[in-house]
Amino acid sequence: MDPFLQAALDEAQAGYDEGGIPIGSVIVHDGRIIGRGHNRRVQKGSATLHGEMDALENAGRLPARVYRESTLYTTLSPCPMCSGAILLYGIPRVVVGENRTFMGDEDLLRSRGVEVTVVDDPACADLMSRFIAERPDVWNEDIGE
Amino acid sequence: MDPFLQAALDEAQAGYDEGGIPIGSVIVHDGRIIGRGHNRRVQKGSATLHGEMDALENAGRLPARVYRESTLYTTLSPCPMCSGAILLYGIPRVVVGENRTFMGDEDLLRSRGVEVTVVDDPACADLMSRFIAERPDVWNEDIGE
Repeated sequence: MDPFLQAALDEAQAGYDEGGIPIGSVIVHDGRIIGRGHNRRVQKGSATLHGEMDALENAGRLPARVYRESTLYTTLSPCPMCSGAILLYGIPRVVVGENRTFMGDEDLLRSRGVEVTVVDDPACADLMSRFIAERPDVWNEDIGE
Repeated sequence: MDPFLQAALDEAQAGYDEGGIPIGSVIVHDGRIIGRGHNRRVQKGSATLHGEMDALENAGRLPARVYRESTLYTTLSPCPMCSGAILLYGIPRVVVGENRTFMGDEDLLRSRGVEVTVVDDPACADLMSRFIAERPDVWNEDIGE
């Protein structure tokens, strides 16, 4: 597996091991991970820290230039909020582990010029499927359903 | 002024008084404020806590039903990230203090069925204009420019 997608999956697994929703993300600039994170709904009682948002938050305050040269890796197709964050900061490339278990706002991203690559990785999908089967209530809450 | 927009403006003023970006937001359900917040970029070194996101975060974990019956008030037109969060949770109504100093993703919100009302309130615009003149660098960072 691509080492950056693997790093995102490691974040997802860490979230699962904490009892949380297993979605992870890393932001890569110049071949280096500058921010990593995973969904913190359960762990922090957070309604906004999806995996991608947690990675952005952990990357800290950055100049616009850095975002515009970065790639965001996420184990799951980004929801409207996370897609909006990608658009806000002008992140030009997104690598998605899978969109079988949830289809995010990929069309919006593409319509605004973001390059979206869907890997369709079985390990990302398996972990997410397991969680959805175990905790459908928490998952539905996370996507506002 | 509408008391809920006033509450959002009070949040914005509190942010300004802390040395932060003066954008505030409240979420109203059943005639009651269930979450309030303001931009925390400066105060917390946060890349994700815009005013609307901070209000969502402070509202805590809520069932989908509550979001779908709520109105979000914000002193400034919501950026793509905050617009995406509104879409994620299916918040049906957004009241915007002003969009003179920054035009957010109102068209996206309307295209997805959100009712967006722009008050064009001079007090919201004045506070924001003052901050942009004083700290253009911090403002540009907040909108990824």
